[in-house]
Amino acid sequence: MDYVYGPGRNHLFVPGPVNIPEPVLRAMNRNNEDYRSPAVPAMTKILLEDVKKIFKTTTGTSFMIPTTGTGAWESALTNTLSPGDRIVSFLIGQFSLLWIDQQQRLNFKVDVVESEWGQGANLDILASKLAEDTAHTIKAICIVHNETATGVTNNLAQVRRILDEYRHPALFLVDGVSSICALDFRMDEWGVDVALTGSQKALSLPTGIGIVCASPKALEASKTAKSVRVFFDWNDYLKFYKLGTYWPYTPSIQLLYGLRTALDLIFEEGLDNVIARHSRLGKATRLAVEAWGLKNCTQSEEWFSDTVTAVLVPPYIDSTEIVRRAWKRYNLSLGLGLNKIAGKVFRIGHLGNLNELQLLGCLAGVEMVLRDVGYPVKLGSGVAAASAYFQNNTPLIPSRI
Amino acid sequence: MDYVYGPGRNHLFVPGPVNIPEPVLRAMNRNNEDYRSPAVPAMTKILLEDVKKIFKTTTGTSFMIPTTGTGAWESALTNTLSPGDRIVSFLIGQFSLLWIDQQQRLNFKVDVVESEWGQGANLDILASKLAEDTAHTIKAICIVHNETATGVTNNLAQVRRILDEYRHPALFLVDGVSSICALDFRMDEWGVDVALTGSQKALSLPTGIGIVCASPKALEASKTAKSVRVFFDWNDYLKFYKLGTYWPYTPSIQLLYGLRTALDLIFEEGLDNVIARHSRLGKATRLAVEAWGLKNCTQSEEWFSDTVTAVLVPPYIDSTEIVRRAWKRYNLSLGLGLNKIAGKVFRIGHLGNLNELQLLGCLAGVEMVLRDVGYPVKLGSGVAAASAYFQNNTPLIPSRI
Amino acid sequence: MDYVYGPGRNHLFVPGPVNIPEPVLRAMNRNNEDYRSPAVPAMTKILLEDVKKIFKTTTGTSFMIPTTGTGAWESALTNTLSPGDRIVSFLIGQFSLLWIDQQQRLNFKVDVVESEWGQGANLDILASKLAEDTAHTIKAICIVHNETATGVTNNLAQVRRILDEYRHPALFLVDGVSSICALDFRMDEWGVDVALTGSQKALSLPTGIGIVCASPKALEASKTAKSVRVFFDWNDYLKFYKLGTYWPYTPSIQLLYGLRTALDLIFEEGLDNVIARHSRLGKATRLAVEAWGLKNCTQSEEWFSDTVTAVLVPPYIDSTEIVRRAWKRYNLSLGLGLNKIAGKVFRIGHLGNLNELQLLGCLAGVEMVLRDVGYPVKLGSGVAAASAYFQNNTPLIPSRI
Amino acid sequence: MDYVYGPGRNHLFVPGPVNIPEPVLRAMNRNNEDYRSPAVPAMTKILLEDVKKIFKTTTGTSFMIPTTGTGAWESALTNTLSPGDRIVSFLIGQFSLLWIDQQQRLNFKVDVVESEWGQGANLDILASKLAEDTAHTIKAICIVHNETATGVTNNLAQVRRILDEYRHPALFLVDGVSSICALDFRMDEWGVDVALTGSQKALSLPTGIGIVCASPKALEASKTAKSVRVFFDWNDYLKFYKLGTYWPYTPSIQLLYGLRTALDLIFEEGLDNVIARHSRLGKATRLAVEAWGLKNCTQSEEWFSDTVTAVLVPPYIDSTEIVRRAWKRYNLSLGLGLNKIAGKVFRIGHLGNLNELQLLGCLAGVEMVLRDVGYPVKLGSGVAAASAYFQNNTPLIPSRI
Repeated sequence: MDYVYGPGRNHLFVPGPVNIPEPVLRAMNRNNEDYRSPAVPAMTKILLEDVKKIFKTTTGTSFMIPTTGTGAWESALTNTLSPGDRIVSFLIGQFSLLWIDQQQRLNFKVDVVESEWGQGANLDILASKLAEDTAHTIKAICIVHNETATGVTNNLAQVRRILDEYRHPALFLVDGVSSICALDFRMDEWGVDVALTGSQKALSLPTGIGIVCASPKALEASKTAKSVRVFFDWNDYLKFYKLGTYWPYTPSIQLLYGLRTALDLIFEEGLDNVIARHSRLGKATRLAVEAWGLKNCTQSEEWFSDTVTAVLVPPYIDSTEIVRRAWKRYNLSLGLGLNKIAGKVFRIGHLGNLNELQLLGCLAGVEMVLRDVGYPVKLGSGVAAASAYFQNNTPLIPSRI
Repeated sequence: MDYVYGPGRNHLFVPGPVNIPEPVLRAMNRNNEDYRSPAVPAMTKILLEDVKKIFKTTTGTSFMIPTTGTGAWESALTNTLSPGDRIVSFLIGQFSLLWIDQQQRLNFKVDVVESEWGQGANLDILASKLAEDTAHTIKAICIVHNETATGVTNNLAQVRRILDEYRHPALFLVDGVSSICALDFRMDEWGVDVALTGSQKALSLPTGIGIVCASPKALEASKTAKSVRVFFDWNDYLKFYKLGTYWPYTPSIQLLYGLRTALDLIFEEGLDNVIARHSRLGKATRLAVEAWGLKNCTQSEEWFSDTVTAVLVPPYIDSTEIVRRAWKRYNLSLGLGLNKIAGKVFRIGHLGNLNELQLLGCLAGVEMVLRDVGYPVKLGSGVAAASAYFQNNTPLIPSRI
Repeated sequence: MDYVYGPGRNHLFVPGPVNIPEPVLRAMNRNNEDYRSPAVPAMTKILLEDVKKIFKTTTGTSFMIPTTGTGAWESALTNTLSPGDRIVSFLIGQFSLLWIDQQQRLNFKVDVVESEWGQGANLDILASKLAEDTAHTIKAICIVHNETATGVTNNLAQVRRILDEYRHPALFLVDGVSSICALDFRMDEWGVDVALTGSQKALSLPTGIGIVCASPKALEASKTAKSVRVFFDWNDYLKFYKLGTYWPYTPSIQLLYGLRTALDLIFEEGLDNVIARHSRLGKATRLAVEAWGLKNCTQSEEWFSDTVTAVLVPPYIDSTEIVRRAWKRYNLSLGLGLNKIAGKVFRIGHLGNLNELQLLGCLAGVEMVLRDVGYPVKLGSGVAAASAYFQNNTPLIPSRI
Repeated sequence: MDYVYGPGRNHLFVPGPVNIPEPVLRAMNRNNEDYRSPAVPAMTKILLEDVKKIFKTTTGTSFMIPTTGTGAWESALTNTLSPGDRIVSFLIGQFSLLWIDQQQRLNFKVDVVESEWGQGANLDILASKLAEDTAHTIKAICIVHNETATGVTNNLAQVRRILDEYRHPALFLVDGVSSICALDFRMDEWGVDVALTGSQKALSLPTGIGIVCASPKALEASKTAKSVRVFFDWNDYLKFYKLGTYWPYTPSIQLLYGLRTALDLIFEEGLDNVIARHSRLGKATRLAVEAWGLKNCTQSEEWFSDTVTAVLVPPYIDSTEIVRRAWKRYNLSLGLGLNKIAGKVFRIGHLGNLNELQLLGCLAGVEMVLRDVGYPVKLGSGVAAASAYFQNNTPLIPSRI
């Protein structure tokens, strides 16, 4: 018996790991298999092609590494860069901070461009840095597409435009952990060199696969990159790709079958429809926050995130108590505020395999918790705002028309 | 791939089959076993005792028959009565109607006491019938505890009082399909002779076990009852109980393990807490209906059901369209109006392993559907009413305090 | 924790319930669904057609009743016969005995044709009874295709020939519980009027669906059959078939999805290949028994069963001890001897989703148990005989060629 | 539908990933959870203590890293050593070779001590190296406990004795991937400084957790080790251990619950009984190989492995064909010969949650395959030898006595 059992479903609204759909749970409910039999490589081959679709790349090379997002970060950096390389990296919240910490520990020379938490990456500074860097000392631009701690989505198309404007050859490395497969992401069109995500985010799987896509330019860079790497070395994968056996070490059989089904569900729904659904969920959440009279941690509309909303609470309330109480009384799992904004925000993750009524249940729960902790919200107000939007914008489920 | 796939969870609010909790799904995820090994009888023995707790009987004998509620009905009748026996039966909705149909086809002489749909059993008529029946020609009183079609809960304690008042020896047979394990039910205290439920209702399992409890008096009656029966014959079970092998034919191994876990969850929560939770869910639903400006099909508070609410729609709306649209647009499964009240009501099942936020998601969905079909509900109004009640009345989850 | 846990797999070789393949377990690992939504009827419609393929009937009508084999028996009898009807029934083992008991309790006039256990149905007596019955007082012939207690397969084609020879209109009712989907069975060709099986046998599902097929003649008979029936009444099903909603009461959602997958697996393998596989498993088992110097309970080759082998043990050994020890020491589940042959035989079930190496593991286990109980078997002898046969006769797995 | 479906169970006898017991599959069949809720840290805390039991350490510190064995290797090395450090490493097969390759790529100065494949580590050379190394330039001894490619178990107690003899302070790093939880392993007693295994080996889980235990001396070394590391850095874990939140990044919820159950099964059986079971399985396999007239790749009894047996085939046979055919015809998964011994050996993995009859089924299958490829094995001979051993040595299953 689980020792924290509560009746009914847990309402999982942290921004990862997210809800796993039943067909994926079913697909993973299986014994191990010999990964050297013909079956697993055959499945892997197709998966490697199919994951590229969620990155919107046809020219990239994909890697499915048995690791987390942190490991995928490390893979992106160590395969393309050498110790001492200068990189520009944007600090806008806890996850970009952690990535920068990793970059520094991996001995890159990191030009940190910091913004206030709640703002997006300062691309003007990027522009000026690139303008100055006629010697091309900057080897890479590292940016999170969506900062999970603050609910801020950066404008990657704009990053590309700036790079192009200055004809700067720096690699363009993107953390897409809480964006890919949920937000509009276009690896090839935006000239992203390495993009990555984790299985437990919008793909709605358990943790365990770090998915990394490398552009031809990134692959080329990997040939001369001097960062020490073994487990995360793309070359070991490429060697086994050539052999047709695909795996330098044992993959999780269950996650491969799970990924197969997760992709099938996404393709059946249609990637654009998946993105549109996230857009609906994000917009509805923001309307609810507004109706509650609370502020979004994200300071400007241009950065609004459709996968996570960080909600600022009044100074007299500790947001940690909101998260604690949601779990203890309503079986609702919300995200904590992290680091600088600990106690000041709580987060609603609205990504992955999720629908409108699930979110409305969550919003109704948040309203009750807000009252529990002394914020005089009008019960039903956020739900009303969100459902008005849904009622006007939710399409029929295509398979049921 | 399921051909009617929609993203996110299905919101299952029909009054059966109901949501299965994850621990129960896990328990059932297993290969078959030899039911003649020592393991299955040992488990069965304990289960037979433990199911009696949800009937609140210590004197009864329990049967777990591989069948549905309809089969459990048949088992209750054929084991205790003989063709031609006079019985009093209350027609108050579709399920009592179906039971009466079965009673008639099994060749009992059925005294049907009909009420308007939306009202409870007319116990005044019962009293007068018993008063007149000094010859004790009435062999049994058949009554549904909770009529699932109309959301009407009958007063069983009152039935017992009337029987006692007239010192009438008639058997007291109760369909507890949508009540037992969710509503207050007291087999021994109320002198119920046969009570029954189905695994797919408040126990929150798949369909497949008809659980029947028989009082000593009912067991005694079974010795002389002349109704033909084989599959449903209690004697075959009793014979195997004595042998210690328990099963006259092959049970579902998966359902036995599922039942074990379902009972464990109920006992961990506490049966009284389970009943209190249903009371909260029922009350909140009724408050929402009121806030929507709609009428409960149940005509008086005395019969309000805490497991299912049938909602009357205005004459210009077809409730079938509500159910259809809920499923097609919001992945919400509601109950149809049946028979006489088809098109006139839709039903919200709020029984089984379900919590407050799940129900609030459902209520938010109903509001959107109501607008979809042209009823000018104020969005958020029902949710507000329900959550105000919940916010005042929901206890902390004990395991998380 | 299961209280009889032993490391490794349980080796399940009882003749039912049998091993469930992983894809079927996966398919059943799901929440309940509204069975009145469009999805379940759509799936049911196709299933009702597809199950007919394993009966080899195109003219029959199929019923998937939430019950066991015993319930399917009752459905076959009560829908086609009236109390007092004369039927001929063959007693050749425990399961035919139980069916006859049911027939008698249902008030038919049963002409029991008994054979020694280990022999097949005495069809000469059938011929003489039919020859005498010029008045056609015999309303039905009831026969088990495969007697699970003794491992005896009756010759149904011959039954049909005899009926035809005497142009006798008696209904031909067949218990195919341990044959259909494993042995050659031809409902239409053999003019079977009602055939039935249970989900937990060769279909390799959990217990819970009694599958019954009725010929047009049987359906016609059901219109006048006077046996009392409600739960098992085909008419209730036919009514809902016409409505397109298919279910008179709640089916098991899990078993429907499980059946879908079970049939998919059978059709992928090919029904004829499934039957050929059972033939290989049966033959190999018999070769092992011979190599052990033991006798098959089945007295003549013409009746050998490819789904279950009952093995006679020497008089100084109690076969119950073999079964007990197999489970206690080797995690091997064998079938007990039943009734008359209790203690004298143990049974190896070799039906359902099973392959050669699984059976060889079982046979190796039986050898060790035989030595444990004092029978001087030569270890490896049965395995050698069986594997010699397999090595010559097992085809490559088609999907892997 | 799996595109390489074959009827019945897959017989999985590669030396990893291995068979997952049903209770573990059940435990992992669950939705994601918030790993920052109180539940996951509470579970993690106990798991970190409990995994130490299978290493037989009370003084060690454990890490459960979301990675494979290769990642666990990297964690062991980079946390304790600095680039340029001299280490002694034993090359005795493919997996020690791969580890050495990793050591070299991580820029250690590797003193490779090579043995013929089929022999154990040459500890005499170790002794002489240590004897010479009075300056203590050797910083670590790296050794695989059990070389999975050849089925060779090294004598770790002897390594410790030699280190002690020369009072050499080198760290003692052990790859226990195919030994821990199956072979006798004593971290504290043998003074092992870092030991590691992977979840998909004897623990019988899916791939995904690299479990590493570090002695106090290893932890001390980690404070000065200069190898670059982030994802694999123990310090990040230690920081979160102190905070009581335990995870520097997202763990797999499913694997945590799976590990909980895997450990429960092991503790219920008793770790010593688990090891004894592996000893039985190993011994029986070797007896079968002998009976077949084939040679064990392992050249001397002192190195026999109880988790994997590599079988040498006659020169006129390609062992790859044996593996291919086993899978294609008998649904049997055997291990390939790797690198130098490709084509020359096939491997039988007999580790993890496995019992006697499963192995006998495998052995029977190997016999048939051997005949298929032209080796004149006497069918049943290996099974006879193995089952004679089992019949004398297998205890009753304790829970069933």
